[in-house]
Amino acid sequence: MMKKICVLTSGGDSPGMNACIRAVARTAIYNGIEMEGAVGGFSGLVRGDFVPLDSRSVSNIIQRGGTILKAGRCKEFHRIRQRKIAYSNMDKQGIDGVVVIGGDGSFRGAHQMTLEHRVPVVGIPGTIDNDIYGSDTIGFDTAINTALSSIDKIKDTSISHGLPFFIEVMGRHSGFIALETSIAGGAEAALLPEVLHDLETVKNTVVECKKNGKMSIMVVVAEGNESGGAKAAGERIKRATGIDYRTCVLGHTQRGGSPTAKDRVLASRLGYRAVNELMRGTTDMMIGELNENPTLVPLKEAWSRKKEISVQDLEMVKVFSI
Amino acid sequence: MMKKICVLTSGGDSPGMNACIRAVARTAIYNGIEMEGAVGGFSGLVRGDFVPLDSRSVSNIIQRGGTILKAGRCKEFHRIRQRKIAYSNMDKQGIDGVVVIGGDGSFRGAHQMTLEHRVPVVGIPGTIDNDIYGSDTIGFDTAINTALSSIDKIKDTSISHGLPFFIEVMGRHSGFIALETSIAGGAEAALLPEVLHDLETVKNTVVECKKNGKMSIMVVVAEGNESGGAKAAGERIKRATGIDYRTCVLGHTQRGGSPTAKDRVLASRLGYRAVNELMRGTTDMMIGELNENPTLVPLKEAWSRKKEISVQDLEMVKVFSI
Amino acid sequence: MMKKICVLTSGGDSPGMNACIRAVARTAIYNGIEMEGAVGGFSGLVRGDFVPLDSRSVSNIIQRGGTILKAGRCKEFHRIRQRKIAYSNMDKQGIDGVVVIGGDGSFRGAHQMTLEHRVPVVGIPGTIDNDIYGSDTIGFDTAINTALSSIDKIKDTSISHGLPFFIEVMGRHSGFIALETSIAGGAEAALLPEVLHDLETVKNTVVECKKNGKMSIMVVVAEGNESGGAKAAGERIKRATGIDYRTCVLGHTQRGGSPTAKDRVLASRLGYRAVNELMRGTTDMMIGELNENPTLVPLKEAWSRKKEISVQDLEMVKVFSI
Amino acid sequence: MMKKICVLTSGGDSPGMNACIRAVARTAIYNGIEMEGAVGGFSGLVRGDFVPLDSRSVSNIIQRGGTILKAGRCKEFHRIRQRKIAYSNMDKQGIDGVVVIGGDGSFRGAHQMTLEHRVPVVGIPGTIDNDIYGSDTIGFDTAINTALSSIDKIKDTSISHGLPFFIEVMGRHSGFIALETSIAGGAEAALLPEVLHDLETVKNTVVECKKNGKMSIMVVVAEGNESGGAKAAGERIKRATGIDYRTCVLGHTQRGGSPTAKDRVLASRLGYRAVNELMRGTTDMMIGELNENPTLVPLKEAWSRKKEISVQDLEMVKVFSI
Repeated sequence: MMKKICVLTSGGDSPGMNACIRAVARTAIYNGIEMEGAVGGFSGLVRGDFVPLDSRSVSNIIQRGGTILKAGRCKEFHRIRQRKIAYSNMDKQGIDGVVVIGGDGSFRGAHQMTLEHRVPVVGIPGTIDNDIYGSDTIGFDTAINTALSSIDKIKDTSISHGLPFFIEVMGRHSGFIALETSIAGGAEAALLPEVLHDLETVKNTVVECKKNGKMSIMVVVAEGNESGGAKAAGERIKRATGIDYRTCVLGHTQRGGSPTAKDRVLASRLGYRAVNELMRGTTDMMIGELNENPTLVPLKEAWSRKKEISVQDLEMVKVFSI
Repeated sequence: MMKKICVLTSGGDSPGMNACIRAVARTAIYNGIEMEGAVGGFSGLVRGDFVPLDSRSVSNIIQRGGTILKAGRCKEFHRIRQRKIAYSNMDKQGIDGVVVIGGDGSFRGAHQMTLEHRVPVVGIPGTIDNDIYGSDTIGFDTAINTALSSIDKIKDTSISHGLPFFIEVMGRHSGFIALETSIAGGAEAALLPEVLHDLETVKNTVVECKKNGKMSIMVVVAEGNESGGAKAAGERIKRATGIDYRTCVLGHTQRGGSPTAKDRVLASRLGYRAVNELMRGTTDMMIGELNENPTLVPLKEAWSRKKEISVQDLEMVKVFSI
Repeated sequence: MMKKICVLTSGGDSPGMNACIRAVARTAIYNGIEMEGAVGGFSGLVRGDFVPLDSRSVSNIIQRGGTILKAGRCKEFHRIRQRKIAYSNMDKQGIDGVVVIGGDGSFRGAHQMTLEHRVPVVGIPGTIDNDIYGSDTIGFDTAINTALSSIDKIKDTSISHGLPFFIEVMGRHSGFIALETSIAGGAEAALLPEVLHDLETVKNTVVECKKNGKMSIMVVVAEGNESGGAKAAGERIKRATGIDYRTCVLGHTQRGGSPTAKDRVLASRLGYRAVNELMRGTTDMMIGELNENPTLVPLKEAWSRKKEISVQDLEMVKVFSI
Repeated sequence: MMKKICVLTSGGDSPGMNACIRAVARTAIYNGIEMEGAVGGFSGLVRGDFVPLDSRSVSNIIQRGGTILKAGRCKEFHRIRQRKIAYSNMDKQGIDGVVVIGGDGSFRGAHQMTLEHRVPVVGIPGTIDNDIYGSDTIGFDTAINTALSSIDKIKDTSISHGLPFFIEVMGRHSGFIALETSIAGGAEAALLPEVLHDLETVKNTVVECKKNGKMSIMVVVAEGNESGGAKAAGERIKRATGIDYRTCVLGHTQRGGSPTAKDRVLASRLGYRAVNELMRGTTDMMIGELNENPTLVPLKEAWSRKKEISVQDLEMVKVFSI
């Protein structure tokens, strides 16, 4: 029978991680299991930096951005010697189950643990990028709403001055944030990492919109698009068309903030299920939820398979730009 | 071939209706179809109150709450004589397709039209209550985030003063708003229309929480719960336990406001699909989306079948209250 | 020389109290003075419930609603015997200066202390009602912005349905919240505690607005207006005119939430000045700021004199209602 | 007697301009004066692009960012020939009074008009920078709250990862936004245009904070600080200390969005007074309000005199950084 579970948050922080820590801790405690939090992600395991969590430790955090357990990338964990120290620290604490909240890099670490150490480990997808196969991710809904609120504000200025804006959002390898915010923000075009050679099309859209007397023109650019970002894209289109523009890079504001209802509910459900799965011996799996349906995906699959963007959504951006 | 589509919003307004009107109008215009809006819902058809919509008419509305076409319940439409006037008005305008955005009452009206008039009619679920079978509804995500923002604020006071709060949210016949906001708000208990005889359980939870020294105690009450609302529930528990309390009725604030990303995307997709479905002759159907999957549900089914709340979600509220 | 200061928050909580606690604590520590917080207001003094505050104790709270020191009204403090216990507890802790953050009731307690105990005591105005003579109050700006955000949402529904709304805001004895939010929300009329026999005027305004085809009609009602609140006012006007209406009581949501920039800056300045004033021996005074100008007001004056509402502002509501 | 007033918004847009247009229009109409809006600022006068405004034209805009009359800088207005066309257009419209809402550049244009054309002209300060002598400016309060909301989000990440952030806010020549947001955001330091050679001090603060184990380190940088912005400042401190950092440039998001209560009230009062002043013949003056007190400042003084930042506020940032 499981006696003590350790939870950690790893990689970039995302809104809802605290809601998830709370759900993991309270579900465990409700089932008579003790809880520890490792501070600073995997590096907390290596340094033996644990904090005991009781029910009150996670009070009043469900609405907070960031993570009370700190997060971070952990290079030491790539070396077997450091990992062995981590396992030894975990044994000393009597930890017989681990919940890792994070993105693909964190899942690699979690998977590695299952190969080398005897305790069950499950992953929960926490990343604003939504780029995990087989699940929605904690933080994505908040990130797009934060970005959207900025885009709405920029639209006010774009309309008042008749100036096109190129707005850069997060997404190095995936265009989910860019695509959803361009639909929701009423942007005229989106430049995604997944679509190649799209600058020409976007240029034509901008020219067309200008001609049609659109009140505002906005292009949402994922940072990972081949054009090289908002500034580069705007500049190249200006050179080709003479149309002046402004840029705005939303940056790290997209990572923080109080999580939305959806992210809190998702985080709560995944935390609840993670403990229940650990209790029945599940290991090396991601506890996911795709479109409100519970999923259980091998960790390896979660980071190695590609989640596709919707072709219809991209088509809609074009149709609505008229 | 379809030449002119009419769109109307009916019943209570919900955030995202404007995003949906925009999507319907631009998709139609993109496909060479003319657009009219009926003002004030079905009563606009009866009064012959139409406004032509071009692409610019729906500029800069995607982020606005309410509905530019006005909404409202229409009693006249219950009488055949008034409906015949409506059909005649529609014929004069050359309308050969109708999109009705609204809730169950609106779908009844739309269905009635398909029985008596020759043009195809489709429905789009727009209501904050999420009580439509076979689809998520436009406005629900905004409503729960609005309610949540109030609950977060009340939590500050509940913690600062150590006073339990009974918070009343919308939901006459369905507990979706209450259930989601109680999970997301970290409430200790929820009173739903779907669950009978739950006041005793909630009373015990409140007593238990008080004993456990919880920082705050909050009970979310759907207006349709058998207890009779927040005031009645709080009073009955006070009488039984002596525990003092405060109430807050969130009321109409839950209907308005700028729609969330999710509601705007949902509204855009449903509007886009509605026009495409009309073009291929679909009628008497609701254009829906359930958990990101497109659905097509007979209008009658949409209002007559019951959408169930999640038992696991309700269990989670209990577990997290420790 | 001052060695140890005690800070407490008292009365109803208001957004910005945490920012003020932080400012008091850090200014004291910066000047080599130790800090204690009394938990739960004056009752913390009576119970001897103190927490030492170092610089890290007040980290990451500037943006939080509520108060980390808890607040509350303290009836025991009305009795001399309890107060003597409080003074004795303070002496045991070595407290030689006190900062009381709260409203008029709290200032009475603070003033009483200066009469009976030898340590200097200053007050800082923290209340959402803005009803303190000689100073703006911490929490007022947040409260009106919170109320405004609700009023904006209600406006969406009022416009969509053509229904007048009577919206009740806080303010038992003063109409500052009602007056500012009715201007900022674009309401057609305001009912304040300070103005008698105004229901007739408001009735005429509502009738006039209806006749003029206003898109929305909103009346903001302070809870302390002689009409008896939103429901009573709406009902009486309906009876006289037949005009149907809806109500919304904003309630406790107005007390909580993350403080605005203005409230955080005000709280920071007042906390900073309070410690500096204590260091120079000031006592029995409120540390205030009126329209960005520092003020220093005898505590007694602060609660006994009446702050007046602006006649021009009230006139403006009328002019803008056309 | 005044018969027709023209209102225009000029320069960069700022939140609250719409509230001000509404106030000007309704106050004029209430007093029996006709209203015209010039579209696109001064260029609207030159192009003869006027829109008549009645009471309904300004419905439902008080809460909107941007400006329904469009804004923009107008180079043509620097040439006498273009200005004469403008005056002629104004005469044709029968305009005998002008309200110019904007910043210093707009006030120069307004002042020039008073020298060359016989109608009275008054200015209203609308700019997010707050850099107008003798008045608060419409849009400043919204801008700092918008920036603050981003800073709060960045703080979540800064705390979770232990990384210092350099955050760039608007302010080419004045540090009001940077100073207020650094106090309100709890930033450890501010770099302003008004303070020279401050990078060394800030470097020491960052080193000190790192040593003291602060949960987060944030430096707010006004774009006009001599360091050259957030990136440049962060880089130079990194080179000197080895401390890694992140940057975020808030950019144009600060210009838009729904205005705060304070900005709407300020805009309403200034618009109301502007019309009343024009009616009594006032010209060549800015209608201002400084800390809630009405002011009347010669236009020339408004743009040529320097508004000073508060030394005490800057000192507070230092004290609170411990």
